[in-house]
Amino acid sequence: MSLERARQIVLASRPQGRPSLADFRLEETPMPEMPRGGLLLRVRTLSLDPYMRGRMDDRKSYAKPVGIGEVMEGESVAEVLESDHPGFARGELVLARTGWRTHAPSDGQGLRKVDPALAPPSTRLGVLGMPGFTAYSGLKVIGKPRAGETVVVAAASGPVGSLVGQLAKMAGARAVGIAGGADKCRYVKEELGFDEALDHREPGLPERLAAACPQGIDVYFENVGGAVWQAVLPLLNRFARVPVCGLIAQYNGVADNPTDALPATMRAILTKSLTLRGFINYEFEAEHYGDFLRELAPAVADGRIRYREDVTEGLENAPAAFLGMLEGRNFGKVLVRVDA
Amino acid sequence: MSLERARQIVLASRPQGRPSLADFRLEETPMPEMPRGGLLLRVRTLSLDPYMRGRMDDRKSYAKPVGIGEVMEGESVAEVLESDHPGFARGELVLARTGWRTHAPSDGQGLRKVDPALAPPSTRLGVLGMPGFTAYSGLKVIGKPRAGETVVVAAASGPVGSLVGQLAKMAGARAVGIAGGADKCRYVKEELGFDEALDHREPGLPERLAAACPQGIDVYFENVGGAVWQAVLPLLNRFARVPVCGLIAQYNGVADNPTDALPATMRAILTKSLTLRGFINYEFEAEHYGDFLRELAPAVADGRIRYREDVTEGLENAPAAFLGMLEGRNFGKVLVRVDA
Repeated sequence: MSLERARQIVLASRPQGRPSLADFRLEETPMPEMPRGGLLLRVRTLSLDPYMRGRMDDRKSYAKPVGIGEVMEGESVAEVLESDHPGFARGELVLARTGWRTHAPSDGQGLRKVDPALAPPSTRLGVLGMPGFTAYSGLKVIGKPRAGETVVVAAASGPVGSLVGQLAKMAGARAVGIAGGADKCRYVKEELGFDEALDHREPGLPERLAAACPQGIDVYFENVGGAVWQAVLPLLNRFARVPVCGLIAQYNGVADNPTDALPATMRAILTKSLTLRGFINYEFEAEHYGDFLRELAPAVADGRIRYREDVTEGLENAPAAFLGMLEGRNFGKVLVRVDA
Repeated sequence: MSLERARQIVLASRPQGRPSLADFRLEETPMPEMPRGGLLLRVRTLSLDPYMRGRMDDRKSYAKPVGIGEVMEGESVAEVLESDHPGFARGELVLARTGWRTHAPSDGQGLRKVDPALAPPSTRLGVLGMPGFTAYSGLKVIGKPRAGETVVVAAASGPVGSLVGQLAKMAGARAVGIAGGADKCRYVKEELGFDEALDHREPGLPERLAAACPQGIDVYFENVGGAVWQAVLPLLNRFARVPVCGLIAQYNGVADNPTDALPATMRAILTKSLTLRGFINYEFEAEHYGDFLRELAPAVADGRIRYREDVTEGLENAPAAFLGMLEGRNFGKVLVRVDA
């Protein structure tokens, strides 16, 4: 084994605004050693997610930044290549925070076993993974859509938004999705079953959103911020709930808001008794993760819940796939198939 | 009776930005007639409150605007002058939404009797009235301060802020108040018992607030907005709660925020799992008003809870007192003693 080489992608530099390929570096390293009592993992599928943009910046957030020269953080479905751990056998699949690399040592802490009989393993990174749980717990704990209410979500063809809309429909609510481009909008409306899908690249989003929400908006699942928030704000009903799980439009520090945007937001919070509540999916994990998997895995397996994956081949192509996702060029959950 | 005259103050024009005396007009009118089965009220004490600024604007809010030429809205402690209503006797005191005037007819709907033995009647407009209930319910339902946490409130010598701090102390939390001027700060710290009081007219509020909150801020009771919000934002702890009951700093439409204020606010909501929740006190009335009065009236009566009133004599001086309040020139709950 020690003659084999592993590969990894490290953070080469901190981006100023929009990141570029030069902020990443592919490295070859010796094969990691299996820790005594632990495991050696081979990454099969790496998940790329918007939160990773935040880890590239050197500022305080809910998690500490990736250091310069350190492996980019990330979760993957990995195979147990060698095991000295009584709980895991060679060949088993696990969910692990391996980072962007082909092989990773593990002490077994924090691993979740992946049962390939439950659903396709890659879904544990998307609809049945962190993005799916973000949608599920944000709606369950904060959004609480009721029958007849209107739920709006952006990035509606993505892994969070697509589940938000489908769960809203299951709760008897009206689901309105926003996505970039005609193909995604067609998918959102025709395949996912949203009531309406609006293309944010076309002009007049505020007017089209108002027309699509004749009863106003009761739940806005905030995962983008920026111009979409400005279009949503005047349509929010009294007592509307706004779970805030992401703000991809402002991750690069380029705000597209008018200058008086904060007073308008605060005024709406006040006069409409709005609830804005930020959350990170794992804060609800202890209470709701079990239900999530029990309720949704069968629905994913039998097709009642639909999902879509956007798979890139090869670890070396992860940076380009990641940059594309930040620009909205992906169509579905972004995954990287990693070959050792 | 019909020879007597009543007086009232009407909205003469809609202010552009900061209101002025010319936006109000004092009128003499014939004495209102007692409606059949109803009452005629004589206003004793009129309450002036920041929310009235919103009623002067012609835009959608939680209540409809006062029309041009209509009597300014407001609540008062009034005496029953004549009664054809079985529930109320001549000479009784009631809480009523009379508006800014000396006399008002009433059908009896929505009146609350005022028991002068419970506490001084004017307190039913302040610490034991709408402002007090705003503080009580906002903390109880949204803020939920725990022992050892830090609670910050602005306008700390006013009727909402002064109770927020005193209730925070009773809950075992650290109370930090912000007020305008040395006299108010001395009152807040020495008479109300806050741990710290900061003068927002002195330079360096962000630094002084940080020094006064070494453990960060867990509850920020938002009643001003603007520069204070900007100072509070970086100090909020994860899972901090922000009941939003007022934004007096932006009621005149003059924002003092930097241009990127919204992205910073949204990012904090996201990364710190903040809860911002707007509310109007009456949405919690059915559930909590009884407890409020039962718990606090004895504490006000025996001095465990302190309050301060800023009384102006004469209905004709109500507009000037109101404008002074919007500028922070009052010291305590603003009341107008109305002589018929």
